Amino acid sequence: MNRAELDTLLRSVAAGETQPGDALERLAESPFADLGFARLDLHRELRSGLPEAVFGQGKEPDDLVAICRRLLAAHQRVLATRLEPRGAEALRAALPEATWHPRARVLTCGTPHAAKKCKVAVLVAGTSDLPVAEEAAVCAEWFGLGAERHIDVGVAGVHRVLERLPELRQCDVAIAVAGMDGALPTLIAGLLSVPVIAVPTSVGYGASFHGLAALLTMLNACAPGVAVMNIDNGYGAAVLAQRIASTGDRRALDT
Amino acid sequence: MNRAELDTLLRSVAAGETQPGDALERLAESPFADLGFARLDLHRELRSGLPEAVFGQGKEPDDLVAICRRLLAAHQRVLATRLEPRGAEALRAALPEATWHPRARVLTCGTPHAAKKCKVAVLVAGTSDLPVAEEAAVCAEWFGLGAERHIDVGVAGVHRVLERLPELRQCDVAIAVAGMDGALPTLIAGLLSVPVIAVPTSVGYGASFHGLAALLTMLNACAPGVAVMNIDNGYGAAVLAQRIASTGDRRALDT
Amino acid sequence: MNRAELDTLLRSVAAGETQPGDALERLAESPFADLGFARLDLHRELRSGLPEAVFGQGKEPDDLVAICRRLLAAHQRVLATRLEPRGAEALRAALPEATWHPRARVLTCGTPHAAKKCKVAVLVAGTSDLPVAEEAAVCAEWFGLGAERHIDVGVAGVHRVLERLPELRQCDVAIAVAGMDGALPTLIAGLLSVPVIAVPTSVGYGASFHGLAALLTMLNACAPGVAVMNIDNGYGAAVLAQRIASTGDRRALDT
Amino acid sequence: MNRAELDTLLRSVAAGETQPGDALERLAESPFADLGFARLDLHRELRSGLPEAVFGQGKEPDDLVAICRRLLAAHQRVLATRLEPRGAEALRAALPEATWHPRARVLTCGTPHAAKKCKVAVLVAGTSDLPVAEEAAVCAEWFGLGAERHIDVGVAGVHRVLERLPELRQCDVAIAVAGMDGALPTLIAGLLSVPVIAVPTSVGYGASFHGLAALLTMLNACAPGVAVMNIDNGYGAAVLAQRIASTGDRRALDT
Amino acid sequence: MNRAELDTLLRSVAAGETQPGDALERLAESPFADLGFARLDLHRELRSGLPEAVFGQGKEPDDLVAICRRLLAAHQRVLATRLEPRGAEALRAALPEATWHPRARVLTCGTPHAAKKCKVAVLVAGTSDLPVAEEAAVCAEWFGLGAERHIDVGVAGVHRVLERLPELRQCDVAIAVAGMDGALPTLIAGLLSVPVIAVPTSVGYGASFHGLAALLTMLNACAPGVAVMNIDNGYGAAVLAQRIASTGDRRALDT
Amino acid sequence: MNRAELDTLLRSVAAGETQPGDALERLAESPFADLGFARLDLHRELRSGLPEAVFGQGKEPDDLVAICRRLLAAHQRVLATRLEPRGAEALRAALPEATWHPRARVLTCGTPHAAKKCKVAVLVAGTSDLPVAEEAAVCAEWFGLGAERHIDVGVAGVHRVLERLPELRQCDVAIAVAGMDGALPTLIAGLLSVPVIAVPTSVGYGASFHGLAALLTMLNACAPGVAVMNIDNGYGAAVLAQRIASTGDRRALDT
Amino acid sequence: MNRAELDTLLRSVAAGETQPGDALERLAESPFADLGFARLDLHRELRSGLPEAVFGQGKEPDDLVAICRRLLAAHQRVLATRLEPRGAEALRAALPEATWHPRARVLTCGTPHAAKKCKVAVLVAGTSDLPVAEEAAVCAEWFGLGAERHIDVGVAGVHRVLERLPELRQCDVAIAVAGMDGALPTLIAGLLSVPVIAVPTSVGYGASFHGLAALLTMLNACAPGVAVMNIDNGYGAAVLAQRIASTGDRRALDT
Amino acid sequence: MNRAELDTLLRSVAAGETQPGDALERLAESPFADLGFARLDLHRELRSGLPEAVFGQGKEPDDLVAICRRLLAAHQRVLATRLEPRGAEALRAALPEATWHPRARVLTCGTPHAAKKCKVAVLVAGTSDLPVAEEAAVCAEWFGLGAERHIDVGVAGVHRVLERLPELRQCDVAIAVAGMDGALPTLIAGLLSVPVIAVPTSVGYGASFHGLAALLTMLNACAPGVAVMNIDNGYGAAVLAQRIASTGDRRALDT
Repeated sequence: MNRAELDTLLRSVAAGETQPGDALERLAESPFADLGFARLDLHRELRSGLPEAVFGQGKEPDDLVAICRRLLAAHQRVLATRLEPRGAEALRAALPEATWHPRARVLTCGTPHAAKKCKVAVLVAGTSDLPVAEEAAVCAEWFGLGAERHIDVGVAGVHRVLERLPELRQCDVAIAVAGMDGALPTLIAGLLSVPVIAVPTSVGYGASFHGLAALLTMLNACAPGVAVMNIDNGYGAAVLAQRIASTGDRRALDT
Repeated sequence: MNRAELDTLLRSVAAGETQPGDALERLAESPFADLGFARLDLHRELRSGLPEAVFGQGKEPDDLVAICRRLLAAHQRVLATRLEPRGAEALRAALPEATWHPRARVLTCGTPHAAKKCKVAVLVAGTSDLPVAEEAAVCAEWFGLGAERHIDVGVAGVHRVLERLPELRQCDVAIAVAGMDGALPTLIAGLLSVPVIAVPTSVGYGASFHGLAALLTMLNACAPGVAVMNIDNGYGAAVLAQRIASTGDRRALDT
Repeated sequence: MNRAELDTLLRSVAAGETQPGDALERLAESPFADLGFARLDLHRELRSGLPEAVFGQGKEPDDLVAICRRLLAAHQRVLATRLEPRGAEALRAALPEATWHPRARVLTCGTPHAAKKCKVAVLVAGTSDLPVAEEAAVCAEWFGLGAERHIDVGVAGVHRVLERLPELRQCDVAIAVAGMDGALPTLIAGLLSVPVIAVPTSVGYGASFHGLAALLTMLNACAPGVAVMNIDNGYGAAVLAQRIASTGDRRALDT
Repeated sequence: MNRAELDTLLRSVAAGETQPGDALERLAESPFADLGFARLDLHRELRSGLPEAVFGQGKEPDDLVAICRRLLAAHQRVLATRLEPRGAEALRAALPEATWHPRARVLTCGTPHAAKKCKVAVLVAGTSDLPVAEEAAVCAEWFGLGAERHIDVGVAGVHRVLERLPELRQCDVAIAVAGMDGALPTLIAGLLSVPVIAVPTSVGYGASFHGLAALLTMLNACAPGVAVMNIDNGYGAAVLAQRIASTGDRRALDT
Repeated sequence: MNRAELDTLLRSVAAGETQPGDALERLAESPFADLGFARLDLHRELRSGLPEAVFGQGKEPDDLVAICRRLLAAHQRVLATRLEPRGAEALRAALPEATWHPRARVLTCGTPHAAKKCKVAVLVAGTSDLPVAEEAAVCAEWFGLGAERHIDVGVAGVHRVLERLPELRQCDVAIAVAGMDGALPTLIAGLLSVPVIAVPTSVGYGASFHGLAALLTMLNACAPGVAVMNIDNGYGAAVLAQRIASTGDRRALDT
Repeated sequence: MNRAELDTLLRSVAAGETQPGDALERLAESPFADLGFARLDLHRELRSGLPEAVFGQGKEPDDLVAICRRLLAAHQRVLATRLEPRGAEALRAALPEATWHPRARVLTCGTPHAAKKCKVAVLVAGTSDLPVAEEAAVCAEWFGLGAERHIDVGVAGVHRVLERLPELRQCDVAIAVAGMDGALPTLIAGLLSVPVIAVPTSVGYGASFHGLAALLTMLNACAPGVAVMNIDNGYGAAVLAQRIASTGDRRALDT
Repeated sequence: MNRAELDTLLRSVAAGETQPGDALERLAESPFADLGFARLDLHRELRSGLPEAVFGQGKEPDDLVAICRRLLAAHQRVLATRLEPRGAEALRAALPEATWHPRARVLTCGTPHAAKKCKVAVLVAGTSDLPVAEEAAVCAEWFGLGAERHIDVGVAGVHRVLERLPELRQCDVAIAVAGMDGALPTLIAGLLSVPVIAVPTSVGYGASFHGLAALLTMLNACAPGVAVMNIDNGYGAAVLAQRIASTGDRRALDT
Repeated sequence: MNRAELDTLLRSVAAGETQPGDALERLAESPFADLGFARLDLHRELRSGLPEAVFGQGKEPDDLVAICRRLLAAHQRVLATRLEPRGAEALRAALPEATWHPRARVLTCGTPHAAKKCKVAVLVAGTSDLPVAEEAAVCAEWFGLGAERHIDVGVAGVHRVLERLPELRQCDVAIAVAGMDGALPTLIAGLLSVPVIAVPTSVGYGASFHGLAALLTMLNACAPGVAVMNIDNGYGAAVLAQRIASTGDRRALDT
């Protein structure tokens, strides 16, 4: 049920054409798909712009397949992240038309989202941060954004970023992925004027405390305007980029 | 020195009209204003879209006045945040034309930034979170954005947010400010499709650990697309909102 | 030995019918069952309303069987939680009449507790929180309470809870189980007037720190009256619900 | 607006007697009192059983007086906690009929809540924990519960608790307040069958980390069924006790 | 080289009978046994009362055997703790006369230390704490102390400790081993006048944080005079008990 | 009431000479002194060897005086620690015969405990650790032990300890007080065979985290047999030393 | 491209012999080797004195081989650390001329760095710290420094260090590797006048928190002048030693 | 007593010219100055290259004066750091010839250390980090090193560092002082080949946790060879720089 349909229903109640009880029932039953072990939120796209994604970690293969199938039926597309080997295998068997992105551990199936005029620069401090960065990039592309990877551009070799500045200045949003000292977003936010989304990774020696060090660095970035994500959460970065792109598009349309 | 001027200088070196040494000197000296105890970054706006702001906390009144005067001379505007009583007093005496925002502890002076077509909804979980929220709102307005406050809309009284939904759906960016359990951004990001900027505050009982609890909640928000700021950092939220607005504007212009 | 028996014994000492030494011996020996590697507390029900339960994690299968058998003999019922595969298998072989609840990893055997007139709503934020929620629900049912599951009702999709309000308003106690941001109990305690028991789970990305984030959120819930449990402790939530039900029953009887 | 009034309004919309827009306005405007710097939730009692209380800490005296007056007008009663000296003084001057509880730093004004048949035992580990315990006891009494203080009954002198057992066995709910090692709730929950509410306090030597040690102890209580509160949150304990009393009462009425 | 021999050597230098260089060499070479990958401290007993023990965890089986053999040769006895399966197996094969204590994961070989007139009560809160408690008890016995186990005497069932008081009052030192809330040492130190050694274990639900909760509880024990050990360090508790026993013996001898 | 009196009473109940109810009353009322705001534990010495001490921090001057007077009446001696200026002043005025130890912030009054044949070496790493060390030394002396201070003997200047070895070898118990790196106890426990009591202090630069660093160092001391106290808890160290001395004495008597 | 070549190029631009665009291209392309999944920094040696090393942990064997080959081609040498079994095996097969250091988990291949006149003393507190210490020693030797191991010289047996003083006084830099209490660097920095590099290891019982305790100890070392590394980071210690050696050499050359 | 004198004494013992007891006494008494409340380590320079400095924080003014006078008498120079206003005032009155460095809160008196050929670059991320940086610079100058300040060169404005590269390349040691994100040392260690000493400061918003964030960043610096100091410990950085300079000098002399 989209916004227009909702509006019609409410006016119909006021007009006495629909009984309040009937309306209640329709509103109550429609937005969820009950699978017994899960209740899918089919109206999420209506409210927050993107349909529910499937968090694969810890889910049983059979449940994963059932959830993905149901969401695919409802939205003609589905995105699953953090897939573990068994889950990925089951999904690929059940949905042979799906695309599997091994480095990102992401599976996409169905029609991608409509392309948006928004270029995302995905900056990666070190090679070990690649899986998280790929999750961000693959999801951003799935959401219709352009994603350009820049690998091994950490602060320890500042020239690697500086030589990329001309390209970076063309992007609309920057996602900076870094573990260890997590210093990359500060550098980027000091060089560019676009929103910088910072994703700490759990990569590092002992005192990185599984990403805590990088997370704190990013929260304390000296350059203001840095949006911090949870540790290893590349998907969240892509969603925020999509929200930024959408809000810009809408404002452009309003003009 | 803006981008065009820079370009001219470099071409002049290549043409042999300017000696490399002379060019070096000009480039080296220009972008900074050296006050002895501080070196102001006059090119920050060129690079990252906003001029350097003054972090008032812990600065000596005399230094504050000198810094603000120098930035005002360079940019025709200055913004000072986190002002302590003595600093605020000194600045207000030295810059009688400035505006003092007491609840936000912010001082603005000079020409505000050009207005942008971007509405920011500033949602405040509880009354005690107001100073941080005001810092965000005042700064956003200074950067040319529209800021609409929504006070006391915490999750514990979810109807207070729900009745605001029609207005909230008009905003381009939402800033959610909350202490204690910090649950507000999850709720908002589940209801709106715009970027949600989450600012944890240091308000709360013992186990809030001066904002750590709210910070962790926001980093773990179940609704994706939440941009988390440092504790009590309303200014950072406003800068991110400004960056989002700018990137949208630019993309609109490109069309 | 129940309260009445205890009273008789003490009076008998005062009357000179029983020697203090003999009474001492009876009192000293009776309340425990010594298995060598464990001393079971057979009087726990007398004191605190429920017999000792068996915490299965880390116990050797043989020990588990011996403990459960001894408690079964004493109380005609036994409850074992957190069973690991080997332990569950051994118990199911040794006690074929037992019921095994696989998702909750709980085994019950013997006569359930007498039914109480108390409905418990078990609210589950996300599918991954199900095992903990099931532990709470199965234990509550074993203690004679009614348990109603509400799955996928997290704050990120607030409408999923709101549509359940009529049913939720019928419950006597609510147990809210959530990982990640742990925001659910705040929402529930703001909507209902019954006691809300909050169980944080260890589900989440890096900065959930194995449930610490959800735990802190719940301790800082803006809505007062939230009873917080240890991370993943569904059993504890059920025990508290049972205590709440019992105290209400007793006061009802007193009338 | 109470439940009955709400029901009437909704039926009137369905009957065409009230325009949806008018109904919206009435519903939108009524449940809140907007004071400019705060929006009071006048419907909280309707939803969650108790009217909004005033958290005094950090609030300006004038704001405190305005908020208390408005709530008093709406509910004929008001409760303010965590009052600092200046705030308490202002309130006592503005509301001379109010009662000031200095040790608890609580002010009550107006008609207390109707008495409930529920005895709360407030157990206090050490003298330094008294302010938090008094906050719990005073609030419980204000909510219509009976509160019986038991001072200096910490685990280090276990006989002090044991000699109180006959009295303690008469209570319906126990609130155990303790700092330092926070061991009291485990002991109490092992001795009584009623719900035990545990309140850690910030009292202690260095490694108590302002109450963290006691908080962790209580979350890990070996005796199950312990409801843990935030550090120093006596008020929250009283609210939970009130909710337990209410749910019992309701079930008693249902019989 | 014992104290007497050392004294002789030094006097001999002063008398000119031994060259300083020669003395230096003797002193330098003697107290260590160099195995290439380890340098054993053969004088530790001379200085601190007990020979070096072998910490088995993480050591290669071959290295373990070499170290134990060398220490056995030097002291006619050896004690190895925290043995992992492979190490234990290798040691038992290499030293068939050794005694293997499986629950404690401790191996002892050679002549036990001379018996001391000192009774140690080892109190164990729960069955899961047994391995740590056994490590303490086995080591204490090896050091010549008497060790009496008291299992399942946690605070949640306080009567289990109280019935043991007559026996406990006979002990010279108490070792209290507890995980989860770690409340046992407070109780014991309030009941007995002997030194209480507290050993936190890593047993517990999520918020025990692998023993941190119990550790903090013990450091904050309300009853003074509690000696706290590292998490799971039963061996350390036994060494402290041995030191207490020795110092008492020495003072007894001095009389 | 001491042990002998207790024994007589119990036999009298068995003989029918005393009614159980009367006995109950005598037992219930005697061991506590109720001051309204506190219940003093007058039997603590009976159970745990030392009478209750008064923790001065945070107590009101009037309460302090009342408590000290009552304990003085019961035991003919009283010890108050952690006295703040106002409390110390009030006590010294009320008890002019008391002794005030300014550096230790301790007040003693009445008959000291009987001297015990036990020498305590109090080792102090740095001058800033002196107040905590003095608290330990003054309390130990009050308990009848001999206390010998060794100042500025931290590990950074290892020769300062080594030159003291002959004296240190005469002590029965060592108390090592250190902030910053907290390394002193490891060194001492490696050099002496007596029990080593480690007291971390809150002295240090930022990353000492108010004593946490020193506390962790001591818990991880490589030399086994170190008894760790709470941060800054010199009093606790003295109590443990007293317990060690007592247990030795008792065993000496038994011979 | 080395410094001289760079200088020539820049002068050529100024002389009009090279077009700025051509120069840009040469500078932009040269310093990196792009392998698709990684961009190697071939100029790192130019800037920071040592070529990029390969962090083996978590890297795929094939990627490891490709990276090592490329660096070997560029620099005629390569160093790989933290190699896991599969990676080590693949590298040894692909580079049969390489040297494999099993205890250090380090592989070196090609021409070692030119020998420097700098002796490094590597002090190891306990046998379990050996792998980290070996990583430091092997890397230091690869960098051309002399490395002398001193095993089992922890503070608990202070004589083991003291007897080594004559040798230790000959070293130019000391690296102190320690887990558990991490006290060794304080001792060393108090005895020697050279730079002391402290490496905490993750070795220890529960409350070492995987090296956090040792790390904090070292940061708080009472003896000033201690350089602290990340937990288990032996390689970092070697790099710092190499930098210290280089700066000394350079100053020596300047003379 | 210097090394030569020590050598003579020992030979004299061997020759029978000095009794061992007399030698013992001389050795025992000489290296310390006992002031009652402190024992100064007069041999520290002999062992570790620099005389004891005075840590001013928390010391009583009279004690400070006595300590400084005694050290001045022994070494003809004294350095006091972390002076609080009262202490600074007292010292300046007592030692009118001393130099007071207000921003660094450091006082120096007497003959500075001999100048060394070693240039230290002190890099300061932000103005608020100046006091810590000044402490480092003033102490380094006192130790005879050259110190060059570079203010406001944080990573957020990377050009400010890059334009300083020619000067920075001349330094022998770099000290990088930064709060908030603490990213500066990574950048510097990637650009220079000299030892980089990193000093985190306690400057920052909430989630800097008083310097913890910057500390962790520096420990995790991606560029290897960074020596990390305690939070705000500028003095420690200067001592390490002095040790590096000395070791280089010595090796230069050896040539």
